[in-house]
Amino acid sequence: MEGLPITDADEKLTGAARYPADVDLPGMRHARVVLSPLAAANITDIDTAAAAALDGVVAVLTAADLPTAGRPATDRNSAILATDRVVWHGQPVAVVVAETATAAADAVGLVHVDYEPTPPVVDLDDAASPNSPLVWSHGVDRGAGASADVHAGGAAGGGVEEQSGGNVAVTKRYVSGDLAAGLEAADEIVELELRTQTVHQGYLEPHTVVATVDPLDGTLIVYTSTQGLFGTRDSVARLLGLEREYVKVIPMTVGGGFGARYGIFEPLAGAIALAIEGPVQLSLTRSEDFVASTPAPATIARVTAGGTRDGRLTALVADILTESGAFSGGLAGIVGTLFGSVYRCDAVDVTVREVLTNKSMVGAYRAPGAPQAAYALECTIDELCRALDVDPLQFRIGVAKETGDPMVDDRTWPNIGLTNVLAEAAAHPLWKNRGDAAPGRGVGAAVGGWPGGTAPAAAVCRADSDGVFYLHVGSVDITGTNTALQLIASEVIGIPADDIRVVNGDSTVAPQSGPSGGSMITYTVGNAVRDAAEGARAQILEIAADMLEAAPDDLEIENGAVRVKGAPGSEVAVGKIAAQGSRFGGKYAPITAHGRSAITNQAPVFTVQLVEVEVDRETGQLAVLRDVVIQDVGRALNPPLVAGQIHGGAVQGLGWAMQEELVFDESGTAVTASFSGYLLPEATQVPAIEAVLVESNPSPIGPLGARGVGEPPIVAGPAAVANAVRDAIGARVERLPLTPERVWAAAHR
Amino acid sequence: MEGLPITDADEKLTGAARYPADVDLPGMRHARVVLSPLAAANITDIDTAAAAALDGVVAVLTAADLPTAGRPATDRNSAILATDRVVWHGQPVAVVVAETATAAADAVGLVHVDYEPTPPVVDLDDAASPNSPLVWSHGVDRGAGASADVHAGGAAGGGVEEQSGGNVAVTKRYVSGDLAAGLEAADEIVELELRTQTVHQGYLEPHTVVATVDPLDGTLIVYTSTQGLFGTRDSVARLLGLEREYVKVIPMTVGGGFGARYGIFEPLAGAIALAIEGPVQLSLTRSEDFVASTPAPATIARVTAGGTRDGRLTALVADILTESGAFSGGLAGIVGTLFGSVYRCDAVDVTVREVLTNKSMVGAYRAPGAPQAAYALECTIDELCRALDVDPLQFRIGVAKETGDPMVDDRTWPNIGLTNVLAEAAAHPLWKNRGDAAPGRGVGAAVGGWPGGTAPAAAVCRADSDGVFYLHVGSVDITGTNTALQLIASEVIGIPADDIRVVNGDSTVAPQSGPSGGSMITYTVGNAVRDAAEGARAQILEIAADMLEAAPDDLEIENGAVRVKGAPGSEVAVGKIAAQGSRFGGKYAPITAHGRSAITNQAPVFTVQLVEVEVDRETGQLAVLRDVVIQDVGRALNPPLVAGQIHGGAVQGLGWAMQEELVFDESGTAVTASFSGYLLPEATQVPAIEAVLVESNPSPIGPLGARGVGEPPIVAGPAAVANAVRDAIGARVERLPLTPERVWAAAHR
Repeated sequence: MEGLPITDADEKLTGAARYPADVDLPGMRHARVVLSPLAAANITDIDTAAAAALDGVVAVLTAADLPTAGRPATDRNSAILATDRVVWHGQPVAVVVAETATAAADAVGLVHVDYEPTPPVVDLDDAASPNSPLVWSHGVDRGAGASADVHAGGAAGGGVEEQSGGNVAVTKRYVSGDLAAGLEAADEIVELELRTQTVHQGYLEPHTVVATVDPLDGTLIVYTSTQGLFGTRDSVARLLGLEREYVKVIPMTVGGGFGARYGIFEPLAGAIALAIEGPVQLSLTRSEDFVASTPAPATIARVTAGGTRDGRLTALVADILTESGAFSGGLAGIVGTLFGSVYRCDAVDVTVREVLTNKSMVGAYRAPGAPQAAYALECTIDELCRALDVDPLQFRIGVAKETGDPMVDDRTWPNIGLTNVLAEAAAHPLWKNRGDAAPGRGVGAAVGGWPGGTAPAAAVCRADSDGVFYLHVGSVDITGTNTALQLIASEVIGIPADDIRVVNGDSTVAPQSGPSGGSMITYTVGNAVRDAAEGARAQILEIAADMLEAAPDDLEIENGAVRVKGAPGSEVAVGKIAAQGSRFGGKYAPITAHGRSAITNQAPVFTVQLVEVEVDRETGQLAVLRDVVIQDVGRALNPPLVAGQIHGGAVQGLGWAMQEELVFDESGTAVTASFSGYLLPEATQVPAIEAVLVESNPSPIGPLGARGVGEPPIVAGPAAVANAVRDAIGARVERLPLTPERVWAAAHR
Repeated sequence: MEGLPITDADEKLTGAARYPADVDLPGMRHARVVLSPLAAANITDIDTAAAAALDGVVAVLTAADLPTAGRPATDRNSAILATDRVVWHGQPVAVVVAETATAAADAVGLVHVDYEPTPPVVDLDDAASPNSPLVWSHGVDRGAGASADVHAGGAAGGGVEEQSGGNVAVTKRYVSGDLAAGLEAADEIVELELRTQTVHQGYLEPHTVVATVDPLDGTLIVYTSTQGLFGTRDSVARLLGLEREYVKVIPMTVGGGFGARYGIFEPLAGAIALAIEGPVQLSLTRSEDFVASTPAPATIARVTAGGTRDGRLTALVADILTESGAFSGGLAGIVGTLFGSVYRCDAVDVTVREVLTNKSMVGAYRAPGAPQAAYALECTIDELCRALDVDPLQFRIGVAKETGDPMVDDRTWPNIGLTNVLAEAAAHPLWKNRGDAAPGRGVGAAVGGWPGGTAPAAAVCRADSDGVFYLHVGSVDITGTNTALQLIASEVIGIPADDIRVVNGDSTVAPQSGPSGGSMITYTVGNAVRDAAEGARAQILEIAADMLEAAPDDLEIENGAVRVKGAPGSEVAVGKIAAQGSRFGGKYAPITAHGRSAITNQAPVFTVQLVEVEVDRETGQLAVLRDVVIQDVGRALNPPLVAGQIHGGAVQGLGWAMQEELVFDESGTAVTASFSGYLLPEATQVPAIEAVLVESNPSPIGPLGARGVGEPPIVAGPAAVANAVRDAIGARVERLPLTPERVWAAAHR
């Protein structure tokens, strides 16, 4: 399929795109948040007098002053104000509202909060122990709206839920087969303790939200760069006690989402607007954003695996801790499922515990939980193959699950193409020639999987009198999905993609859609668009049949014209048919058709990443020389865009592998909360990414065979780099990121 | 059916409604128009230097400076700038653009235009004569987009088009039967020369338009209080040479439409925005608006009619001139059709000539052409009945056309209820007791008809997860049509009207609709809404059937809940079903359904008005004591609103009858171009209007039986008042308005 430039390229390249920071409403006030400098403390007093007295300050608000007063601050991913206690460094405590942004910034420093520190829970292993101090003395609230669920479309369930306690919010266990027999049958057994770090989404746009109140009917109007209109709208309504029809979320251009834009500060901004009865712009600085937002969780996986030289995986045992920060985050299920379901294994025993600490509440980050699961699993498989002395890709091909195979959570895999991408990878020159690698270089492979999300969706396809077709959808375009929707409608109707425009509405006018996350927009909204386009096509043919005096079945649409099959010359332009719908007294109805989708079968995507690295043994410095991402895309609707998604995801995976880390000191203070401390990959660190789009296994459900492509390319990256370093230095670094210190230490161990 | 308060009542009562005058875009300039003070002149020079030099003036633009340069100024109803010639008093000649409205106003007076006057064509009879000077020396341009057609949905056609020439733009002739025999058979023959005046729509909001250009893709965005998004958008695109997809019309609250808001100043405002490459607000003062806008045409009807005492109408001959101002207006057909088609008559010979003069371009005004036709016809019938000494209503009942009878233009009447309303009127106490009228009082009756418009329409009905249903339509709500649409969907789906909201989009996002004119929104968009609501209902039942484990046919919806028929207790709320459509991984699709309508059968409406007047013989002063409007509404969807439409239309009819007139002096200067000169009825002049809603003949096509109700109540008013005055003073005033001078003169003749 031919590609189409993404529709919002121009506005982004020229700076014309409008973010919430660009919104300037008449009478708009500026709000800044006072954040806790401590990870765990009781609040004994908040003195707002000095701040309130500052020139230009309109209000200094604490929890009691907002419509959220009385609500427990355990509603994860929504930053409402703390009341008598703070549980992480960066938790919002008060809000300053001023006439200017400068006055608000000045006033933040004048709010005096008296804290009574309590022992913080910082170390993940310690937190999981029964003797640890508690993050929540009254017991753990499981929270609502977990964002991993949002991403995976409910696929994060399954497994057996076991008793939890202390700081352990959730315990999930997945057991199958005879473990003792599995270990017994193994030719080799490996044991690893693999750690991943806290990673931030690293988007360029710090969170900014504008909220205002319609003076007439009280509707709260929220301008925000959100990944999901409806979910954000629902969060705001729920937290502020409003009817959903009186909350209107107007989506703005998203300056990087990656899972962190499901609604963090929107309820707080809305609460301020209600409190001051007027428009307000709430904005965060870069450093504030780092500590007050929702990074991806750290994990510790203690894994034992056994296999045989003839290619059987006989045992897979894991005890995995996922760090959830101050609130329960819902990631345990997806980590356990993805760890335990990729390969056929005689016996599996996986336990995942979600553990609270006094750190930032965690959120979704591109394929939430999957890179951590893949890092644990793929490093283990790599070590096992080394121990068995077998080809790691051939071993994986031998044990790879296929369509219909059971998953560890007792569901079965829907249509998957894992063996397709493994076969492509095994045949790739980088892999085949890996033995020729120069000294200091190494090649690693890893598999990454993402189940794909689903949510019901609707769309409307409507033709205007000039022959332009409009697709109305409720999705937000953060990854070029609008162009995919255009291409779907173009192919279905038979008109050029240029004649199609996508209309993304606000939460009041848009057709229903899940959020732009979980790689599901093309898959779900795309299906609704396909149905709407098919409806429009049928309407066009019906009118054309009347105009051309032929049966609809005898007609075809090509290049924007309807013609009688096999009767050249007899044709009428689709635009002319569309124009009929606006004629006064006209006898043809306007072209307007709905499409609806409620897919419950997911379309999982597997990726193999092949990475070549070079390690400087003197310094431990790591350079990634090649990164090949081989992905089962089902069908690439817009190949350049799919490649673009792969490039972006792969780079994020490299950052995760090499250097990104939100570091907390022993007091729970985040010490890398800036782009000078939190190191995103620089252009010079990133090789040309080679994206291999595998289309040999189209989705039986996705529109025109497409699968969601956004999340998968990040998943295998950290493991692939780690395996390449293992290959290069002959030793394993069991911890991310692969800093020069750690690599050097392992190389010289 | 129970009524519902109109949805925009609150915003109008509280002043929160937003008109184009309320739009204030960053960097917006203010434009004022320089209007011709002469009715006919050549422009020899325009000196803009003094105006341009004024502080704050940004630009002074003449025709050559705009994208419309080179276009002939014959495009009626769109005020682009004159080039070398002006053809009416009030024609725009130049535009001043300034930083402030004040500077723009000051600069208007500094633009010096040199005019070379030519003999103006002012008198309608003179203009029609072959010897008259010509309004257009190069010949008459028939123009485009005639607004009467817009109103009547193409019903203004028919008849035989005859040769025209000179200032006569259009000649239509309608002939049937043997005229000589018809006149011969008559017991009495009457001859009248009946004149109507130029009437202005008298809306409260002077025309104001804001236009701006999207800096990114060049889309011209127009904020305007329009009756029709799409027509206005198309006019702007056509005149400015833009693709329609790059013109976006955003409809604002309409401060009175009545036919005058189909796009007069939008192309000019758009041209200015393109010329200055930024936002501009073009506004007119009240007096400017009076001369630069589009009043309803004056007419002269010379009628001869014959009838018999036993109730036959034997001959109807008319020569009717309709004054069209400087451009052809397309009213000839509708006047001839409505004059000749109401009553069965042995022989008809009606000629209508549309004649140009050097006056304002005429436009649509509530039932365009119909009050003039009714005035000519109904005064004639009244005089004939007086001559025959028969009851005027009984005579009309005897000759009234019925469903399926031929119209004078060779079509046949679709379903009509003329005899229903005549029978109601004949039985009304005011009519039955009219013999008891006190001295100086009189009672008059008249019939008014309106064919009703049609245009294709589409609608989308969508449920949000909170159970609120949204109706997406492209119509503009100027008369409470949104509430009618709510009520239609409420009845179809089976949910309270409060759970339904109407979304009126802009020209980019709205489903197709004809303009809010011609009394067609409820009839056409209402039908699309009904279909969309039926689709939504079927989707609800399908999901409910699955949830309740029953067949859809066994279910019913009542009061917002679905239940199994005859199985009390087993029910599920519609809102809960709607909520399924937003569940992650959910198996039910969102409720989203389209509806489409392409009605070509009109639903004509007839009204009888009974008016009682009192005339002061000493002064000729006229007082209307009672005004009964008996209207075939098909079915009143929202009775208080239908009554409201009748009240408004009746009052406008009274103004037309008694005092409103845009008076031109012999030079063609409009001399009553202000509300102190142009007299709208005051509250003290208007009696309590009695609206009688006749529902005995529901429309077989309109939603739930409804007919369009907006235009008809104005139609019969002027004739009914004239006939009442005739009754009161024993003499006929053959000219509107019925000023004290004319009434006194007739009474003392």
